[in-house]
Amino acid sequence: MRSVDSRSGLVRMDRDECLVLLADHTVGRLGVVSGGSPMIFPVNYALDEQDIVFRSADGSKVDHGLGGRVCFEIDEFDLETRSGWSVVVTGRLEEVTSLQPSMYKRITSADVEPWADGEKPHWLRIRAGNVTGRRVGPEPAGG
Amino acid sequence: MRSVDSRSGLVRMDRDECLVLLADHTVGRLGVVSGGSPMIFPVNYALDEQDIVFRSADGSKVDHGLGGRVCFEIDEFDLETRSGWSVVVTGRLEEVTSLQPSMYKRITSADVEPWADGEKPHWLRIRAGNVTGRRVGPEPAGG
Repeated sequence: MRSVDSRSGLVRMDRDECLVLLADHTVGRLGVVSGGSPMIFPVNYALDEQDIVFRSADGSKVDHGLGGRVCFEIDEFDLETRSGWSVVVTGRLEEVTSLQPSMYKRITSADVEPWADGEKPHWLRIRAGNVTGRRVGPEPAGG
Repeated sequence: MRSVDSRSGLVRMDRDECLVLLADHTVGRLGVVSGGSPMIFPVNYALDEQDIVFRSADGSKVDHGLGGRVCFEIDEFDLETRSGWSVVVTGRLEEVTSLQPSMYKRITSADVEPWADGEKPHWLRIRAGNVTGRRVGPEPAGG
């Protein structure tokens, strides 16, 4: 169920609405903590049930994110109408070691083929704990 | 000067190119650390020289970000061509207490009028330390 923040006028979306938006999109941003500081990385992803799944090379995402709490954000904004929405997932980042058939189908689809070249040996997922979403401004017609 | 990562094919943009992109955009994402976990908040901002400037209500951005190291990200992606870019700024988040004229002009402009309603008493800036940017995929014509 949606609710409206009386102070800001922001509409808080419920989990189901957030999950529909996550399923409809393929690029988001991973937030991790490295040495006490935040880092943000764009990634292309797929939603598998309620998990965010993506591939990664060796490097910061794996070194700093794996096993720890991370967040993942998607959004869309319209500058003309000053409106938009964002969804933030928080949860633990895990390496996918045994793939269930449904997940295998999803993460081997084109949606999670990394755009950059090079080896991406790590298949990672965020076990979605908290899922929150907010809308600001007028909603687009039909949306 | 640009450089290309031989492993991933990603193009690393130099600081000047990143600053041009930051000046051309008005919505980005603030990353802060709260209780050891990362958080991401969309914000509308302006670039004042090399600082990211935005307004905020009381709340998580101020409680968890102020005085500490934060990051700020903007990006743009084209799903059809599987191309895009992202710029990440890291630096310290400070409350703006004494405004220089040039900053005053920028942060009182429409660009940093928050889209949400409600009091936004805090004028914040990120003193940009490290500024990095990457491009993936073919560049758009003219861009």
